[in-house]
Amino acid sequence: MFEAHFQTFDEPETGIALSARLSAFREELTKRNLSGFVVPRADQQQNEYVPPSEERLAWLTGFTGSAGLAIVLAREAAVFVDGRYTLQSAKQVDTKAWAVESLIDPPPETWLAQHLAAGDRLGFDPWLHATAAAEKLAAACAKAGAELVAVDTNPVDAVWTERPALPLAPVSLHGQPFSGEIEGDKLKRIEAEITKLGADALVLSDSHAVAWTFNIRGGDVAHTPLPLSYALVPKSGRPTLFIDHRKLSNSVRDHLEQTADIAEPGALTAKLVELSKSGASIALDAATAADALTRLISSAGGKPVHGADPVSLLKAVKNDTEIAGARTAHRRDAIALARFLAWVDHEALSGALTEIDAVEALETFRRDTGALKDVSFPTISGTGTNGAIVHYRVTRKSNRRIARGDLLLIDSGAQYEDGTTDVTRTIAIGEPTFEMRDRFTRVLRGHIAIARALFPDGTTGAQLDSLARQFLWQAGVDFEHGTGHGVGSYLSVHEGPARISKLGSAPLKRGMILSNEPGYYKTDAFGIRIENLELVVAAEIAGAEKPVNAFETLTLAPIDRRLIDLSMLTAEELSWVNEYHERVRHAVRSHVDDVTKAWLDEATAPLSL
Amino acid sequence: MFEAHFQTFDEPETGIALSARLSAFREELTKRNLSGFVVPRADQQQNEYVPPSEERLAWLTGFTGSAGLAIVLAREAAVFVDGRYTLQSAKQVDTKAWAVESLIDPPPETWLAQHLAAGDRLGFDPWLHATAAAEKLAAACAKAGAELVAVDTNPVDAVWTERPALPLAPVSLHGQPFSGEIEGDKLKRIEAEITKLGADALVLSDSHAVAWTFNIRGGDVAHTPLPLSYALVPKSGRPTLFIDHRKLSNSVRDHLEQTADIAEPGALTAKLVELSKSGASIALDAATAADALTRLISSAGGKPVHGADPVSLLKAVKNDTEIAGARTAHRRDAIALARFLAWVDHEALSGALTEIDAVEALETFRRDTGALKDVSFPTISGTGTNGAIVHYRVTRKSNRRIARGDLLLIDSGAQYEDGTTDVTRTIAIGEPTFEMRDRFTRVLRGHIAIARALFPDGTTGAQLDSLARQFLWQAGVDFEHGTGHGVGSYLSVHEGPARISKLGSAPLKRGMILSNEPGYYKTDAFGIRIENLELVVAAEIAGAEKPVNAFETLTLAPIDRRLIDLSMLTAEELSWVNEYHERVRHAVRSHVDDVTKAWLDEATAPLSL
Repeated sequence: MFEAHFQTFDEPETGIALSARLSAFREELTKRNLSGFVVPRADQQQNEYVPPSEERLAWLTGFTGSAGLAIVLAREAAVFVDGRYTLQSAKQVDTKAWAVESLIDPPPETWLAQHLAAGDRLGFDPWLHATAAAEKLAAACAKAGAELVAVDTNPVDAVWTERPALPLAPVSLHGQPFSGEIEGDKLKRIEAEITKLGADALVLSDSHAVAWTFNIRGGDVAHTPLPLSYALVPKSGRPTLFIDHRKLSNSVRDHLEQTADIAEPGALTAKLVELSKSGASIALDAATAADALTRLISSAGGKPVHGADPVSLLKAVKNDTEIAGARTAHRRDAIALARFLAWVDHEALSGALTEIDAVEALETFRRDTGALKDVSFPTISGTGTNGAIVHYRVTRKSNRRIARGDLLLIDSGAQYEDGTTDVTRTIAIGEPTFEMRDRFTRVLRGHIAIARALFPDGTTGAQLDSLARQFLWQAGVDFEHGTGHGVGSYLSVHEGPARISKLGSAPLKRGMILSNEPGYYKTDAFGIRIENLELVVAAEIAGAEKPVNAFETLTLAPIDRRLIDLSMLTAEELSWVNEYHERVRHAVRSHVDDVTKAWLDEATAPLSL
Repeated sequence: MFEAHFQTFDEPETGIALSARLSAFREELTKRNLSGFVVPRADQQQNEYVPPSEERLAWLTGFTGSAGLAIVLAREAAVFVDGRYTLQSAKQVDTKAWAVESLIDPPPETWLAQHLAAGDRLGFDPWLHATAAAEKLAAACAKAGAELVAVDTNPVDAVWTERPALPLAPVSLHGQPFSGEIEGDKLKRIEAEITKLGADALVLSDSHAVAWTFNIRGGDVAHTPLPLSYALVPKSGRPTLFIDHRKLSNSVRDHLEQTADIAEPGALTAKLVELSKSGASIALDAATAADALTRLISSAGGKPVHGADPVSLLKAVKNDTEIAGARTAHRRDAIALARFLAWVDHEALSGALTEIDAVEALETFRRDTGALKDVSFPTISGTGTNGAIVHYRVTRKSNRRIARGDLLLIDSGAQYEDGTTDVTRTIAIGEPTFEMRDRFTRVLRGHIAIARALFPDGTTGAQLDSLARQFLWQAGVDFEHGTGHGVGSYLSVHEGPARISKLGSAPLKRGMILSNEPGYYKTDAFGIRIENLELVVAAEIAGAEKPVNAFETLTLAPIDRRLIDLSMLTAEELSWVNEYHERVRHAVRSHVDDVTKAWLDEATAPLSL
């Protein structure tokens, strides 16, 4: 009945079968006179989702997480993962061949200091590391008396015989009705930023920045409508867009050539060398620009200027068209969500459903809207103990039956041309325990504290983060992830520069869209997360002495009333729940079938103390 | 009847009379072939309170704030102050001779970039700037094509004919009953920190660190029992304490010589040069170590290692003896505070009292305890519009009569040998307005949110800061200072490394004492602040998954119930107020006269909704 078009449930390859690859890779290193090599989970642009040809870490180690690093030395080899992936990496990596180590604290550099010997030559591919990361590796090598060696070609590729080709998905225009601002106007704002930086030109090394600037979308990576590309924007004059011509139709190409020169990606290096020879200052995004670019500019006599990509902030602040699109996209998504939640409530108690069934049903309801371009990330569908795995991705093997007494955690999102969504709901299957309701209510109170927050201009996400945690802290518990991330407009579901986290140092500006997703995870028991997207808007406050902002909640889906312990809510919190549910009912009711309508009426009925 | 022994109400000298000093100073600069000079409000150790001989900024410009900088060029001269001191500086500085500019954003370096000419020689005294600050000045000069010149002797001193001598207050031992840990044990912990830093020795350039390490106190600066001194602690072997021998009695000297060599302050440079010649790595506190020390070490072949002084954290975490002392000190202070608050309530409505009367009365009640060593800072006593000046210090000239309808803001503290206190109360004189009660209640709710906060180990002050602001933000208002600072144990009332502020990146550890002091200031109208000191303690929570901390409120003084709008409080907040007042009553009642007792019973009577 239901099926998934945009996501799969395959088991990742497991470690044991991969040991031949590690041997072949070590032989290749010996041939190249290298003592070791660093294999990051990265492409040339530090993308979150990378094309299959760039999945070197997964190919070599079996580990498929979205962040990680491997270091192979002659005798030792280690995979470095963060706390999210401790459980997953233990299952995927052959621990006879690989040690699994910490990615963050301590960092891999600590491991290097212990395992490198004086005189060792550690190789790295400068296209796959940003400059700051490369400098840390170099410092660790220097400390051990070893040398960090930049290679011209990646030794993994030499032994990866069936390595896929780069993707060539067609590029489409993301026109005025969705983008709200023509390329020429965006380029004028970017030129002003380049002047502010005191640079002569800016490299857009982030394909998201290119897509936003030139109002184009593509399909080169999973779940984000990204056309892999680069651009070089001078502080005045025509920019150059570097993109494989096979991705451009004649009409798209003609449109783009009105504002930019088009060149093949391979031409970027020559263009940078040419510009550098005149001694130009060239701004690079410290987060995404490959160290290879910096080396290129410096060696040709240019001056690389590392900083935050100014396009990142321009892109994060949505204009009126994008905001209107986001509201429409969320009302559309709300219909699919209501159908899905009603379906779970009607079917799950029978014990016949699995986590995969839930993923397939939700994607099907979203496809039924007729507007779904992709899911914005693989749905996290975790029931019972799987719900406690923060970045769980269900496979045929891990797939659990949804059982009475479970909490089902569903974190999902859609890519629509008018907006990107991201929503998490936690559903009680049968009667929840006292502990589940207590924890759910604490998570909900934190969620509401963010949703209702009023905060002056200039407030950062770091300043709001603990509002989401305070009620969990009161019970001596917490959640080990940020409270929220920025979200793009038919672009990446994880977008900078703002986030709600103790590391969120960027001020929250009107027009930004951020997730609000506190949670609680009890290992081997259950997981809870409540996530809505929030738009930063102006707050009208009589007597205010400074501009104050608020969040407008975009996501519209019932929050499971059976999991709320009403005795723990304040009157204001209860009002928030009731008003939110009224908004949901109003937005969805006239667009769904009678069965869903009846369910919706009950799921959004006002609560009282 | 009442008098102040530890604070004065003199008007600071005003600008006009000082113009002769500026002329003489410019002549001195010309003699030395300098185009200009930087005069910071600083001594050689970046102390908060500096001895009179170091008040060069006040002597030259008239500005007496606790932070600031002057730059004198041939034609222009500017005083740089932060937002706290905008009003005060405008009154104190002769604006015909001096421009008043921003100290923080933009920093003085921006002004320098605009006013320095190529070839200019800008002088600075490397003993009065930490290295990071000196480097910023040097960069600004370089940008303008000018040169930053380190001088051997300060040109202000050459024209300041009546410059006072350095203070020579006697040093006393701060023995085991107060310090709780002998010097030898402290030194062992410091040696372990030096080893962790990978250094050969540590310079204690902060007299507070010296005082803590060697369990000594003194009286060289106002309000902090500080013996101006340095120490050099090697990673093993005897440390050297650099202190003027005239401050040491024979018995103090004999005691100190059990653990350290004693030398004159002037011997520090020779000792550092000697150590540097062997190529030693010498750790320096980046915040307090003079750039002159860094230059000395480098030029003699040593390796200066800049970082956070490890003693700062050791000192901030109070041991059981210091904690017991703090509780005793606060119970003692509570008696003086109750007598004072009762006295204000009985006397102020007559209209006969002034801000200075309040300061004198409070100090007198504290002296009556028989234990007062000093006030911990000049009392801020601001009524009506003066209450809105955050760092107000009353003078004979600014002194206002306390009038019906005023809010009286009193921020004060005591130095007792067993502990340092700091407390602010805001008192309604007659009937407060609706706005006053609304704002007071929002400040109180923020104060209670901090006091009741439960937070996991590792939580920083930055993560708690917005809890104190949330209710003010909801009304579109805020306060422009941090929520709290660390407090020493019979040492500085402002102590690092932890603070509750958006800049507070140090984790709050059990045993730290911090202030909790949200406020609200309506310019030209009134000021509100509620401040208690809080001790970080372990929280006992059933089912907690990680160690959780809480605050134990040390300060015990009634909060003005007439200013609370009960309809704005939650039940939990009301309980907090009633339980707090019960603690105050219990601690104070048996120690005060009948009139105060009757007042106390009323001031601490339970409130109900």
